[in-house]
Amino acid sequence: MSSLPIVYVTKRLQFSAAHRLYSHTLSEEENDTLYGKCARVNGHGHNYVVKATVRGPVDNTTGMVMNIVALKSAMEESIMKPLDHRNLDKDVPFFKDKVSTTENLAVFIWGGLKRALGSHDAELLYEVCVQETENNVFTYRGEVAMDSSSH
Amino acid sequence: MSSLPIVYVTKRLQFSAAHRLYSHTLSEEENDTLYGKCARVNGHGHNYVVKATVRGPVDNTTGMVMNIVALKSAMEESIMKPLDHRNLDKDVPFFKDKVSTTENLAVFIWGGLKRALGSHDAELLYEVCVQETENNVFTYRGEVAMDSSSH
Amino acid sequence: MSSLPIVYVTKRLQFSAAHRLYSHTLSEEENDTLYGKCARVNGHGHNYVVKATVRGPVDNTTGMVMNIVALKSAMEESIMKPLDHRNLDKDVPFFKDKVSTTENLAVFIWGGLKRALGSHDAELLYEVCVQETENNVFTYRGEVAMDSSSH
Amino acid sequence: MSSLPIVYVTKRLQFSAAHRLYSHTLSEEENDTLYGKCARVNGHGHNYVVKATVRGPVDNTTGMVMNIVALKSAMEESIMKPLDHRNLDKDVPFFKDKVSTTENLAVFIWGGLKRALGSHDAELLYEVCVQETENNVFTYRGEVAMDSSSH
Amino acid sequence: MSSLPIVYVTKRLQFSAAHRLYSHTLSEEENDTLYGKCARVNGHGHNYVVKATVRGPVDNTTGMVMNIVALKSAMEESIMKPLDHRNLDKDVPFFKDKVSTTENLAVFIWGGLKRALGSHDAELLYEVCVQETENNVFTYRGEVAMDSSSH
Amino acid sequence: MSSLPIVYVTKRLQFSAAHRLYSHTLSEEENDTLYGKCARVNGHGHNYVVKATVRGPVDNTTGMVMNIVALKSAMEESIMKPLDHRNLDKDVPFFKDKVSTTENLAVFIWGGLKRALGSHDAELLYEVCVQETENNVFTYRGEVAMDSSSH
Repeated sequence: MSSLPIVYVTKRLQFSAAHRLYSHTLSEEENDTLYGKCARVNGHGHNYVVKATVRGPVDNTTGMVMNIVALKSAMEESIMKPLDHRNLDKDVPFFKDKVSTTENLAVFIWGGLKRALGSHDAELLYEVCVQETENNVFTYRGEVAMDSSSH
Repeated sequence: MSSLPIVYVTKRLQFSAAHRLYSHTLSEEENDTLYGKCARVNGHGHNYVVKATVRGPVDNTTGMVMNIVALKSAMEESIMKPLDHRNLDKDVPFFKDKVSTTENLAVFIWGGLKRALGSHDAELLYEVCVQETENNVFTYRGEVAMDSSSH
Repeated sequence: MSSLPIVYVTKRLQFSAAHRLYSHTLSEEENDTLYGKCARVNGHGHNYVVKATVRGPVDNTTGMVMNIVALKSAMEESIMKPLDHRNLDKDVPFFKDKVSTTENLAVFIWGGLKRALGSHDAELLYEVCVQETENNVFTYRGEVAMDSSSH
Repeated sequence: MSSLPIVYVTKRLQFSAAHRLYSHTLSEEENDTLYGKCARVNGHGHNYVVKATVRGPVDNTTGMVMNIVALKSAMEESIMKPLDHRNLDKDVPFFKDKVSTTENLAVFIWGGLKRALGSHDAELLYEVCVQETENNVFTYRGEVAMDSSSH
Repeated sequence: MSSLPIVYVTKRLQFSAAHRLYSHTLSEEENDTLYGKCARVNGHGHNYVVKATVRGPVDNTTGMVMNIVALKSAMEESIMKPLDHRNLDKDVPFFKDKVSTTENLAVFIWGGLKRALGSHDAELLYEVCVQETENNVFTYRGEVAMDSSSH
Repeated sequence: MSSLPIVYVTKRLQFSAAHRLYSHTLSEEENDTLYGKCARVNGHGHNYVVKATVRGPVDNTTGMVMNIVALKSAMEESIMKPLDHRNLDKDVPFFKDKVSTTENLAVFIWGGLKRALGSHDAELLYEVCVQETENNVFTYRGEVAMDSSSH
């Protein structure tokens, strides 16, 4: 058996959405304290930049980890279709009872992209990076911690 | 009399806002045809990048056209305060009866910044450039055309 | 009659192409001296970034100079279709007897975009800016000079 | 013994090259299906951005992991010299029988840079990241997988 | 117990500082050889871009790893206050007997930010990335190696 | 006589320098008030990005306004050589009695570049743009105003 190099392939796209940081489990005052101007009642919005990365061996014949056109299609389906030119809180069921922080958005995109990639390529998903602004970036790699506060 | 070099000074900032393209003078169908996904009912949003430029002679003593700290203050007052983390359509009176296209937004910012700069520096205002996304940019220099359709 | 603000609207896109700087009216040595590594026989390539700008009055009803979706379509038709993933010298008739410098490329794009925009919007075309690399940028605004060397 | 901080040092450069995605082991139809517009016969090109990273302890006297000037020299020798203003398929022997995907390009650069760095610094090479366009990025860290399909 | 996703949160800021690479333990000639133009006697300067990353579980109620406003405050305190519009060598005690390479600067920022974050959030600090120029980037993750040369 | 298109050619480069805003004709208090943190005694620094633009007819044979390699050489000579890795105030005679604001720096670069370009190309110089940080940009086009305060 010979060996194959393992390469990380990243595709970048951008979508525009409105949202508001507001938790229904907290009071008005608590929301204001926690989220500040992000909690204003009529919302605001961002151009979110998403970079999705798959990691895997480079196929000897194609010279590719996976076809980046297929990665783009999966991202169109799972990211652009539900999120672009939408209001995260009002248009996306996932955020009906979850605050639309970019942490939660990264987790949402990870889940949707994994489903859209199909069983083989889903195993290759390595990282979802969401840039809320040029100064605030959030990355999810599918890692989890036990929640010691729940029971 | 000696001569002074004339320099253009540009200050860049960024704000995040929600909006929707929708004209109350048009039908639902006309809005859909004209604005497409930008007309969706719950809105979307952007990180708007604004570059404001003043143009004037360089003062011999200070070496400056105007203090860029004063330019920044005027931009904070006229751009960040009314627009950042706001919904353009619901929170900004100017857009109550004007569609919040970036063309109109650039004109709004020009007017507000001119007022905020004070009478001397207002004369120096040269250009307001508003980047809606990295692919769509709108610039206003205070130029006007006669509207032959009005009467 | 009332007045309308005049705004500049810029749309940005990117294409990838191969080319070689080589003039058939010059000798090998002259080509080498003039174009250096850009004249190498098997060619090289770039991700060209194009920013096209139209300039015109903002319509009172739509709040737009022209629909940026129509601008994008005209750019797809006149820029992406003939140039993207092409070899400028071998695939584009315009460069059969013209060196594919970015100066000439900007002039080519100006002409094609003007035709693609249609008679009304073509009058609004203000500027075509072509970035060959992040360090080399070429801009054409339709200006011409008399060629005193021709006769 | 005291301890030394381990730091990652990244140097970025850019080169321009032509190429075409085409496998001689596949039929015309298979190449078209697999590579689409990237398989067009006269090729296209890119401004490739390379970021090479070394990782190692910070020397107490120099305050450096390795001299970034030496890293730059090794990158000039192993990246710019063979690849800049070249046609990957026609000018670079490595791609004579390998498709010039950016996956394979990243592996080629890794190997060449490791040789150019010299025996001590070669051990520090951590990552080679190649940006084909602003939307497509490929990263290699020297990892390999067993190729279960070979025998 | 349920599980919580672990997310990486990155905040970016920028400061401007002067410095000079010069080691008091080396001769003039050695400094010149080692640091070249960076050793010139009157110094030079940079716009340093810092990206600090914390890594931790996403809180179920807030949807955040930690409040990014608190991360920004800690960065203002530990980075902007001591370093912005300063001369690293003359104004920052840490560099009195340490060369102000960006490797050492990244280590300095890591230490200061850890202290500024407070005991809980300090545990979350994952990475400090310092961009000296767009071509030179240095990253520290708190890793250390034994220094075999010391005794 | 036929006509030639007039194109704008822009070359970008970057240098790193230290400086301090301080006028010897003003008191300490006036300097503090006017320049704030930029007046601190030990100085600070920037990565200055310069974009120089020439404007002229495209030569029918070469397809170029002027050889961009010659433009680069003139910029190396007039910008990089005197300014890169220097202290503007201490190393550059022009700033001995002029405050090193970026307004004055743009004027200095315009003058030096005009001399370095040679008599023919000097006529083509159109604009010098100096980016002090990503948020502060200064542009000079050789325009002058009469100084009504001098006598």
